[in-house]
Amino acid sequence: MNFRSYMQDALDAARAAGKRGEVPVGAVVVGPGGDVVAKAGNRTRELSDPTAHAEVLAIRAACAALGSERLPGHDLYVTLEPCPMCAAVISFARIGRLYYGASDPKSGGVAHGARVFSHPQCHHAPEVYDGIAAAEGEALLRGFFAYKRGGGGSDPEQF
Amino acid sequence: MNFRSYMQDALDAARAAGKRGEVPVGAVVVGPGGDVVAKAGNRTRELSDPTAHAEVLAIRAACAALGSERLPGHDLYVTLEPCPMCAAVISFARIGRLYYGASDPKSGGVAHGARVFSHPQCHHAPEVYDGIAAAEGEALLRGFFAYKRGGGGSDPEQF
Repeated sequence: MNFRSYMQDALDAARAAGKRGEVPVGAVVVGPGGDVVAKAGNRTRELSDPTAHAEVLAIRAACAALGSERLPGHDLYVTLEPCPMCAAVISFARIGRLYYGASDPKSGGVAHGARVFSHPQCHHAPEVYDGIAAAEGEALLRGFFAYKRGGGGSDPEQF
Repeated sequence: MNFRSYMQDALDAARAAGKRGEVPVGAVVVGPGGDVVAKAGNRTRELSDPTAHAEVLAIRAACAALGSERLPGHDLYVTLEPCPMCAAVISFARIGRLYYGASDPKSGGVAHGARVFSHPQCHHAPEVYDGIAAAEGEALLRGFFAYKRGGGGSDPEQF
């Protein structure tokens, strides 16, 4: 699999999150051998848990499977620019490469605002590749919020 | 109870974390009526979970008890300046007031580095009160790391 296939997996997880009424963001953790070791979409509403972003759930699942707080040699694919919480978790878990899709000027914490990886207080920064299948990731979010606003033309089954 | 008593509760949780071999940081969530609704210390090693900081565990427990992603009117007491992950979770949970102890120039994300609350991408910032029982919080951390380094003079039972 190449990086576009992994991002398609993350987009599938985002669509599944949207169908559950969650903000459609998805994430996939890929191991050193190229295997998908965890895949998750947002579940903050379902779990009543403000930390249950796709990235956090995928990283926690991968860490639990490995029995380790750290995932050296693992990569993360996520459909949206991570927020500061998720960026910090990516750093703590020692993720090697971060591939993300849509930019998030409103709430992002990698290329915007807190820019978590850009300070000496961040002790590990992944390689960052942005804009991967960004149009697809963004379209999912736009459709979801249009549907939520009752703006018409949107259908929950699209997610 | 006043704010110093709540911080003593957080220091107790930090000591208990140190006894478990975890970095001794503790946190307490206080509800609108002044009741302690959650109390936690770090468990990142025990749970193999890089997100299991004291603040995250306490907020997740309070949210689970309340069945809500948000904790309006709740305050958080923590013995050390929160990292960027924890600062973002404090924001997401809509914590009203953050009281913290020791400053963390190396890894903090409130008064240092990412300064999570200081950007327009942060949609809720708590009132922040720092330096509460800071000497006690810092002494616990110093003692723990001295013991870890085998520097002598320290005793795990001190935690």
